[in-house]
Amino acid sequence: MLIGIVVGNVWATRKEDSLNGLKLMVVQRLDLAHNKLAESFVAVDCVGAGIGERVLITTGSSARKALYNQESPVDAAIVGILDQEEMMGKKPESD
Amino acid sequence: MLIGIVVGNVWATRKEDSLNGLKLMVVQRLDLAHNKLAESFVAVDCVGAGIGERVLITTGSSARKALYNQESPVDAAIVGILDQEEMMGKKPESD
Amino acid sequence: MLIGIVVGNVWATRKEDSLNGLKLMVVQRLDLAHNKLAESFVAVDCVGAGIGERVLITTGSSARKALYNQESPVDAAIVGILDQEEMMGKKPESD
Amino acid sequence: MLIGIVVGNVWATRKEDSLNGLKLMVVQRLDLAHNKLAESFVAVDCVGAGIGERVLITTGSSARKALYNQESPVDAAIVGILDQEEMMGKKPESD
Amino acid sequence: MLIGIVVGNVWATRKEDSLNGLKLMVVQRLDLAHNKLAESFVAVDCVGAGIGERVLITTGSSARKALYNQESPVDAAIVGILDQEEMMGKKPESD
Repeated sequence: MLIGIVVGNVWATRKEDSLNGLKLMVVQRLDLAHNKLAESFVAVDCVGAGIGERVLITTGSSARKALYNQESPVDAAIVGILDQEEMMGKKPESD
Repeated sequence: MLIGIVVGNVWATRKEDSLNGLKLMVVQRLDLAHNKLAESFVAVDCVGAGIGERVLITTGSSARKALYNQESPVDAAIVGILDQEEMMGKKPESD
Repeated sequence: MLIGIVVGNVWATRKEDSLNGLKLMVVQRLDLAHNKLAESFVAVDCVGAGIGERVLITTGSSARKALYNQESPVDAAIVGILDQEEMMGKKPESD
Repeated sequence: MLIGIVVGNVWATRKEDSLNGLKLMVVQRLDLAHNKLAESFVAVDCVGAGIGERVLITTGSSARKALYNQESPVDAAIVGILDQEEMMGKKPESD
Repeated sequence: MLIGIVVGNVWATRKEDSLNGLKLMVVQRLDLAHNKLAESFVAVDCVGAGIGERVLITTGSSARKALYNQESPVDAAIVGILDQEEMMGKKPESD
């Protein structure tokens, strides 16, 4: 799974029916030091994430396993809001 | 899912039968500031997108979930036309 | 799906049985201006493509949908031979 | 599969239910000479790996095959702890 | 599918049970001129490949189609040993 930060929301009036009601959030990938990377993409929020929160994102067909309707054409889902980490050589941190 | 802009159409007289009738659009990826990135690919249009429109693209096996015939050899589908966005630190925008 | 040009064929006497009879073509990816990119890979030809032809390639598990035997370990398939395109700001072209 | 080194753990109090009880480890990819690469991601530990260990990681839908609950939205799993290798032109090594 | 060269073997005493008995080979990707690229990964050998041989590798869920036990958490498999190629503008070659 990828670590990213939520940087926005997008809306599409004309979209696939099965995407109706899903929150489409723009996520930017983070490196290990929490710096933003260039890579960004859209993920369906499954855990009530907000803009600015550090999140865990599942991509590919596995993303659909986080959805109520697993027949939706979704390839990225926010599956966790990160609030604690322990990294090699650093004191455990909490967001 | 990826954010891109539709930049063209391609046609293939000789192609897999199950691709018949599908609109094959050339999409170029956009970054968060709506700049075109080098990466381009072909996606099946599922929502009536036109050239120049900013679109939401699902890739991988999940793309087939947007198709009437999910047995088609398709790995990218346009599933939304983006018309509104709200980005961290910027006023919400509409296309 | 990706746009590429067929640049060769490869053969493997010792290979997975279910690959027998499949034409393994070497494809090089093209950018929007039809320039060759560094990325190359092997795809199973499903439409009778020849060396030098511009082709449409499906990758991932969706590629198997183009095969007679969908149980073959194949992750890329040539599913169309491109013969016409219309790009933003350019007159429609035919190959 | 990818070769990486475990560099940390992350926790998410708010997360997908089916991720409960799974150990989420931060992994950094290694090159052939065991140098750390920039790419890092989160994988579910399935073999009792610890921080600093060199591990084998399966990604994509295949990662779910390593889980007790294959319906979890997981796209990366640690499936082995590497303890021996033999590389072209070098004496076999054990970790 | 990718073209690569086998550059080594890895072993993991502690690993997923369903990986037992599978030969884990380290593969480095090759470009069209047979030069080694930086990208390396581990693939399960399904055709008796040896170190130094040029091989065909299937990745993603399609890789599992080459395995006896398709429930194994495997995302890359060696499915052919390349012994002949014909490239645009070059005389056909045999390894």
